[in-house]
This record gives sequence, structure tokens and C-alpha cells, in this order.
Amino acid sequence: MRKFILLFQCHDRKGIVARISDFILKIGGNIITADQYSTDPAGGYFFMRVEFILDDGQQNRQSLVLAFGPIAQEFGASWNLYDQAETLRMGILVSEPDHCLVDLLYLWNAGELKVQIPFVLSNCEKHRKLVTGYNLPFYYVPASKDNRQESQILSHSLASTDFLVLARYMLVLSSDFLHKYNKDIINIHHGFLPSFKGVDPYGQALNKGVKVIGSTVHFVDNQLDEGPIIAQEVEYVSHKDSRQDLIRKGRHAEKKALAQALSSYIDYRIIKHENKTIVF
Amino acid sequence: MRKFILLFQCHDRKGIVARISDFILKIGGNIITADQYSTDPAGGYFFMRVEFILDDGQQNRQSLVLAFGPIAQEFGASWNLYDQAETLRMGILVSEPDHCLVDLLYLWNAGELKVQIPFVLSNCEKHRKLVTGYNLPFYYVPASKDNRQESQILSHSLASTDFLVLARYMLVLSSDFLHKYNKDIINIHHGFLPSFKGVDPYGQALNKGVKVIGSTVHFVDNQLDEGPIIAQEVEYVSHKDSRQDLIRKGRHAEKKALAQALSSYIDYRIIKHENKTIVF
Amino acid sequence: MRKFILLFQCHDRKGIVARISDFILKIGGNIITADQYSTDPAGGYFFMRVEFILDDGQQNRQSLVLAFGPIAQEFGASWNLYDQAETLRMGILVSEPDHCLVDLLYLWNAGELKVQIPFVLSNCEKHRKLVTGYNLPFYYVPASKDNRQESQILSHSLASTDFLVLARYMLVLSSDFLHKYNKDIINIHHGFLPSFKGVDPYGQALNKGVKVIGSTVHFVDNQLDEGPIIAQEVEYVSHKDSRQDLIRKGRHAEKKALAQALSSYIDYRIIKHENKTIVF
Amino acid sequence: MRKFILLFQCHDRKGIVARISDFILKIGGNIITADQYSTDPAGGYFFMRVEFILDDGQQNRQSLVLAFGPIAQEFGASWNLYDQAETLRMGILVSEPDHCLVDLLYLWNAGELKVQIPFVLSNCEKHRKLVTGYNLPFYYVPASKDNRQESQILSHSLASTDFLVLARYMLVLSSDFLHKYNKDIINIHHGFLPSFKGVDPYGQALNKGVKVIGSTVHFVDNQLDEGPIIAQEVEYVSHKDSRQDLIRKGRHAEKKALAQALSSYIDYRIIKHENKTIVF
Repeated sequence: MRKFILLFQCHDRKGIVARISDFILKIGGNIITADQYSTDPAGGYFFMRVEFILDDGQQNRQSLVLAFGPIAQEFGASWNLYDQAETLRMGILVSEPDHCLVDLLYLWNAGELKVQIPFVLSNCEKHRKLVTGYNLPFYYVPASKDNRQESQILSHSLASTDFLVLARYMLVLSSDFLHKYNKDIINIHHGFLPSFKGVDPYGQALNKGVKVIGSTVHFVDNQLDEGPIIAQEVEYVSHKDSRQDLIRKGRHAEKKALAQALSSYIDYRIIKHENKTIVF
Repeated sequence: MRKFILLFQCHDRKGIVARISDFILKIGGNIITADQYSTDPAGGYFFMRVEFILDDGQQNRQSLVLAFGPIAQEFGASWNLYDQAETLRMGILVSEPDHCLVDLLYLWNAGELKVQIPFVLSNCEKHRKLVTGYNLPFYYVPASKDNRQESQILSHSLASTDFLVLARYMLVLSSDFLHKYNKDIINIHHGFLPSFKGVDPYGQALNKGVKVIGSTVHFVDNQLDEGPIIAQEVEYVSHKDSRQDLIRKGRHAEKKALAQALSSYIDYRIIKHENKTIVF
Repeated sequence: MRKFILLFQCHDRKGIVARISDFILKIGGNIITADQYSTDPAGGYFFMRVEFILDDGQQNRQSLVLAFGPIAQEFGASWNLYDQAETLRMGILVSEPDHCLVDLLYLWNAGELKVQIPFVLSNCEKHRKLVTGYNLPFYYVPASKDNRQESQILSHSLASTDFLVLARYMLVLSSDFLHKYNKDIINIHHGFLPSFKGVDPYGQALNKGVKVIGSTVHFVDNQLDEGPIIAQEVEYVSHKDSRQDLIRKGRHAEKKALAQALSSYIDYRIIKHENKTIVF
Repeated sequence: MRKFILLFQCHDRKGIVARISDFILKIGGNIITADQYSTDPAGGYFFMRVEFILDDGQQNRQSLVLAFGPIAQEFGASWNLYDQAETLRMGILVSEPDHCLVDLLYLWNAGELKVQIPFVLSNCEKHRKLVTGYNLPFYYVPASKDNRQESQILSHSLASTDFLVLARYMLVLSSDFLHKYNKDIINIHHGFLPSFKGVDPYGQALNKGVKVIGSTVHFVDNQLDEGPIIAQEVEYVSHKDSRQDLIRKGRHAEKKALAQALSSYIDYRIIKHENKTIVF
């Protein structure tokens, strides 16, 4: 018994759900869960995620893709079909702050983040012990503002990963890197975007005197801290909280937002659309 | 163009979604949104809510019910079909505290609670001005612990309402009343159930020294504060908060939970199942 | 028995608390609660709020002010002494959206917002019924972007109020108005400042695709939506939420933040310092 | 320059704050922060926490205790004076679930939990690697329901710790153990007390169909899950969440509540009073 996930989007019109569920029925599948969203039933855009199981051992992802292709074409749809058994390969980039890294490795080791981790790459040597303690490869790449070492990062990442997560990686990746890598990159920003972009968001929050701080997980695009937002979490603060307190309190929000966003991503629950996300 | 909502539940098996969406396609409908939930794809129970629009003026609820009946029978399903244009009739019972009443009438008047309100009934005469200011009937029924006046409440409610909301009504309705009324009754309890049932939940919370208080909206059944929970909201408190402070802070949670629960109910998003609720 | 509140701020140094509490002891007072905050014990700025009761009927605010003056001078302090029995006079300005107004009047009528309300002023005639139903004066001033009618607003407010609350008042008050009124003005902005300043913050939030919306209560200063923040509240949202949904959900946050901020203000719990607030 | 913390409680009466702050002034101290709380200014009970610094190297805890004793006696007060430089010794007991342990060790290693950790004791051998990786002693004690091994736990704990934290320790400690240990024991219960005491609180929450789960940190006393509550945190859930999902979501609340409660404890911010806590 295998589980597949279909992500599907097209201009909204009648009969999409019927056509897709009929297809799944005919191949002997059973729909576990299906989510739809339409920006507007009249003339809008339609999004669907279907999770279904097949007991027939004959079918695999390739044969399903072949069979479903013509239906998708009918609707002029963008789509992807995933076999849940094929786990994604997630490369981790991290700078000095290690709380997100610690949390991700914990969740992965506990079987709650169903990914492969080809490596953890850092410009801080000090994480080596933690990472190798989990029997994972650790790459020390001394990237800095003056030399971002992007070709080295790319050569580590390109073939071995399906996506990258910046688990508090403090250097901006260039447009050139994004273009060459050309897969998803997920970043945790320790500010409540669109407020407090860039460096030291907790210091910015302190100076502004806000009463709530937040953190934001988003896809990376060409503009700093501007890609589609996946998840946000907040913490209440007061005048008594120092910059150090904000950092400490903010960690809860960072870890929670990142764990939640990655869990959605790995379950293929996220569809990007016009600089926003649908998160089913 | 009319909008219909189908609520459907049966033992889970293959092809349910396909069969239902095919039916909707064939009658010329367009699915706006569909939600499913299964307690277990293998041998569990399946729940579905489908919202669809029909432009064909010929079809109405009755003809759709006739047409869908055989399909439901195939699956041995429990189901209901609702025409969104037919608004529900919500009777309100309220005792002395008026914040929930004020909020419900505000939301109703603002067009955000799409119900008819046949009456507000209270054992407190003082709400008359507020209620009649909205041109709604107000019934003063001097119910008390010694004389619950249930026959009078029933005679007001039975024919004129589709459901009742107890917007801080402080008397328990008897099993006999529930049996005779035999429709949904929704209660807001100002405690975080299953903690702090019965009278003075804020006082109970204060004595226990909890650091978070809550309120709970639930269907009423034969046991005190025990019916299926629809929504819960919380507020953080501290040792500094007096009983009066808990009452004051709790109001936010009460109003928010009640508005949210009623909004779900009116949109036919709630399915009861084994003393729990599925809220799509 | 009368209750007084002292707000006090000066450069931090030894003995401030001792000096103040000794003063209160000597006049026969009993400290109910005292809060301090120092930006830095070495060379920082010190803030204190003391609430104390006096049973001696002889003392009043004036005599206490005379007696305390020399002590404050010793420390080069800014300070104010308030008699809790002298309730503040709060003028309300409101445009079309009425949910904050409804909430404030409810709280005031319930005795939970211990202020006088000399008037509600609006550029929307439609609130008259609500306001006069509470036996409060209602002033209709047809202010618009082209003619802000500030001299009329000022003539209503200047002598009769101690502070103004903009309970969703949609016109910006000019620097000239602020200068002439020269007392506190508290605004509720329906966006999570510093994000989403100016018009239609919910629309801005929708376009940005944020997963959390918020509202902010702040003092008004010369820059749009830039004064010291008093309170912020948030609500979680998703891709499913329309602009209308954000407006609906945001109301909870707006009402809660405004009620909390005004309650702090009226209890003299707020000290402004360098574009931030200390809220004891 | 040393920092001291005074915790003080007595029947409320005039002049307490003055007397204490005068004492601190006379020994050359500077009050950093002071918090008070009174259950009732007339006839109630008064609590105070004062944090002050002394530059005079002559004074130490013992001499201060001697000097302050007579003042405390005047007021018939219970009190304690702590030297912030003397860090508390926190023994950790843990069973199979390790997320709280991982978080505590992370925070301790990051310098954010200013305690000594004399040992981690577990009835699960598997935590040895994690604990010894931090160069901390690990004691494997195969306690079970049939043999709680309390004498062994006591012999490890009695002399070497100032308090114990049960970081998801699944065996109840007997009254006899509590009596012999006779110091504070802090427990994290993964349920929203007073709901869902005892075993499998997430399963209990699932069966009840609640829409919010929570976790509770409390002092241990003779009754199961009944001691004074220090901190509570919550997470929103829905019908879709399985028992496994509740466990996963609940971990955020558990870790946050425990970190917050221990941080308050270590800073001497908690006073127990009549089965409740004052947490300054």
C-alpha cells in the first residue's frame, strides 16, 4: 500500500474535483484527504491537494504520471505527483546561532521530520560535534560577507539536495546562486515580516518598542526577506525585555514556525502562487 | 446562482469523493470547497462537507434531495443538504451577563451572523431596551432555580427556532426540555472544560491558581457542561488578577469563542460524532 | 480612604525607592503596589509607579504635591501625582467602523472603564442613536480629507477633555491640531505596526500574504502611525481568509488591544520615554 | 558588585516597603527592581521581592542575613535572602521522552539556565550519550512501577541538589520520598491541569475532543498533579490531530512552560502561598 500526493492548480471551472476523483477511483485508489481552494469560483484560480493510497503494487509514480498527464492537459494545469515513500533530501545551512539546528536534528532523529539530510553546512566550525554526533556529514565552509563561497556551497548542494533550509544562516544568497540552484530554499527570519527585514531584527524591534515580536519562515527569492511567507509565530514582550530577552523569547517562535513550515513542505502541503502561499 | 452545502458521513471506503463530485458535476454544479476527514482510511468513519453552486434555476433543495438520496443509500450514509439562502432561526437565551448578547446582536446587525433571530428570551428584564432597540422581540420569562419555566421557554422556541444559543444563560435545561425541543442547543461555558464545570468557573480557576483561563462553546446534552466541544479560547492570567479581572479578561475569550462557533454552525461546518465535533 | 498614584522618572541612583517609600510612610500612607524599571542601574534612567492609600482625610492632591515637590527636586525628577477619585475625561473620535465604539461604550457603562465621556464626535451621523442611547452627547462633524474641520474638533475637545481616543477615526490629525490640543491622543491602528501603516492595513496584509495579522494602540505624534506603542494584539490567519475575513478576525484584536491600553492609561500605568512606553 | 535577592512575606501593614528600602539604602545598596503583591491591603497578606546590588565587598549573605533578621522579626515575616552568585544545584529526573531534557541541556549549555546540574538520573539508559556529551554525570536507575528505587534516587539527590526537576519523569514520587527530600520538586505535566491528571493526558484530551491542549509546570506535593501551578502554556488543535499530533504539538508548550518556570525559579521570582504561586 503506497501513498501518493497530487498538487494541482489551474483556472477554476466546473468538474475539476469530479475528474480528479474519478481518475483516482479508476486506478483503484482511495482518497485519504483532499483540499481545495479557489481565489474566486467565477474566473479565479483553483488549487487542489489530494492524498490517496493504492494497494495495487503495479502502479508507481511514473505510470501514474503518464496516466494523469492527459487530464491535467485538459485543464491546462500545473501539477506534481509525489510518492510519499521517496523522501526529500534537505540540505541545512546554518551560521552561529544553533537553536534551530538543534531542534531540526532532534525532530529528524525522532522520526518526525521525514527527510534525508545529506549534510549540514556552516561557516561556524563549532557545530561539527553536534552534527557528526548524529552521523551526518558536516561541511565547514568559511563563508563571510567578503567571500560568500557560493560556488563551494553550490557544489555541495546541487546534486545532493531537493531543497535547502537556512536555519539561521546569516549571509544573503546571491541571485546568481538562486538561479543556479533553482530549487526551493526556505529561510527562517527572526523578525515579523514585513517589519524588521535584514540584520538584527530583535534590536530593531527593541528600538521600535513593539509589544509583540515574531518570526517568519518564507521561501527565498531575489529580494531580501521578501519571498512568499509560509508560517509566522509570535511572542508577547514588554518594556522589561532586553535585547537578550527578545532573543531568548524569540527562539520559541523561531523553532515552532520552522518546524511547522518544514513539516508542511515535506508533506507537500504548500503551493506558491503570486508571492503568497497556499498552505493546506 | 444558488449555493448548497452537503454534509455527509458514512463508513469509509473507496470512491466516495468520486461518486459525490460526479453527482455534482452531472447536475451542473461547481464545487466551491470540499473538506473530508476520515478517522481511519481502513475501516474508519468518513466525513465530508461540500459547498457547491448551481446556476440552473430549476433545481432546488427538494429536487436535489430526491436525486441524491439513492447515492447516499449506496453508502449507508447519514447526510443533510442545505440551501444557503434559507437562513437558520436562532433563539437566544440569556441571563444577567450581557456581553455575549451585545456581541451577537452587533454581529447580526452588521450582517456577519447570517441568521434570523425570532427572539431574545431572558430572566432579566434589563435587556429589553437593548433587544427592542434592534427591533427584535424580547420575552421576559422569570425563570429561576425553583421554577425554570421550561414549558414557557419551550412554547416560545419549539416552532419558531432551528436552534437555541445559551449566551450566558445560567439555568440548566432539563433532560425533559432537551427531549421535547430535540434540536441543537449551543452553550458558552466560561471555563476551560473539562475543568471548572458548573457554577462560578472563574472563582474555581482563581482558587486553583491556574495561569491560563478559557471558555468553551459546546452542544448541550443531558450531562452538565459535557456535550461535544465546538470551540475553545484562552487568556493568560497571573496571581495579580482578581476574580473581577478574570471575569473581565474572560469576556474576550467568551465572545471570540462564541462568535467563531456560531459562525461555523451557521455555515454548516460542524458534524457531531461520538461526543466530539468535526469542525471543517 | 483615598487612593493616589505617583508616576516618577529620573536618572537612576541609590536611594530613590527608600526616599519615596519613606515619604509615603511619613504622611501616613500605605503602599498598595509599586513598580520600578531602570534602563540600566549604572547610569540609566529610572521609572517608578506607586499606588498608595491614605486614611487621613486632611491630605489632598494639592497638599501632597506641595510636600513631595522638594523630594522630586532632589532627584531632578519628572513626576505626576494623581488622585484616583478624579476620573479622567476621555473624548472619543470615530469614523464609520463602530465595533471599537460599541465596545468602549459597553465597558464604560459596565463600570469597567472609569472615565467620564464628555462626547463622542464622528463624521458619521449614523452613530448618533447608539451614543445618545447611553445619554452621552454626540457631535456630528462632517470632517473629510478635503476639510478636516479641525478647529471645530478642537473647540469641542480642548476644555472638556483630558485626552482623546481615536477609536477608528480615519482622518489624520494635523501637527497644528496636535500642537494646539497638547494632551495625549491614543489611536488604534488596525495593522501590526511598524508594518502596514496608513490606509487599508488589512488589504496590505492580504497582498503580502502574512499568516498573522495584528492591531496596535499607540500615542499619536507628528508622524503617521509612528508614536509610542502601548499595546498590540494578533490573530492567526490563512490563505483562505479574504479581506472581509481579516476585517472580521481583526476586530477581536482591535477591541482587546484598545480596551487593554485604555485601562492601563486610566490607571496611570503608562510612562512615555524616548518614543517607547513603559507599561507597568 | 554583587546582586542579592530578598523574598519576603508577612501580614500586610503600613511601612513595609519603606522599612525594607531604608535598610537597603543604609547598607549602601541600590534597588534594581522591587515587586510587591498584597492579597488585600486591609488585613491581607503581603509579598515582596527585591533585587539589589552592593558594591561594598565587605558584606556577604551571612552578614546581611544577620543585619536584616531583626527587621523581619518586627513584621513577623517569612523571608529568604539569596546571593545571585551562588547558583542553585538542579538535579534532573527523566524517563523515556527526551525533548524537555534536550531543551534544558541546550539552555544550560548556552548559559541561559544559570544552575549547576549535579546529575541527570533516568530509568532509560538511552539518554546516557546525550548527557555525557555535555560532560554531566548520568545515573541509570532502573526504577519502575514495581520498584521505584526511591532510596537510590534519594541518595543521589539529597546532599547534591537544591531542587529537583521532573523533566517528564513518569513515576510518581511517594510521600515518603517528598518528606525525606524536603526541598522543592518541579514537575512538567503534559496536560492542562486541573484537567487530565495522571497518565496519558494527550489521549485523555483526544477522547474528550478539546480544541486546545496545554501543559502545566507545578510544584510536586503529596497529591498527584495537584501542587501549586507555576506556568501553563497552550496549543490550539483540531479534529484532524491524532494522538501523535497532540504529542508533537504539545512539545512546544511543554518546553516553553518548563523553560519559563525554571527561569523564574532560578531567579527567585516564585513565592508559594496556600497552594498557589506568586510569580513576580
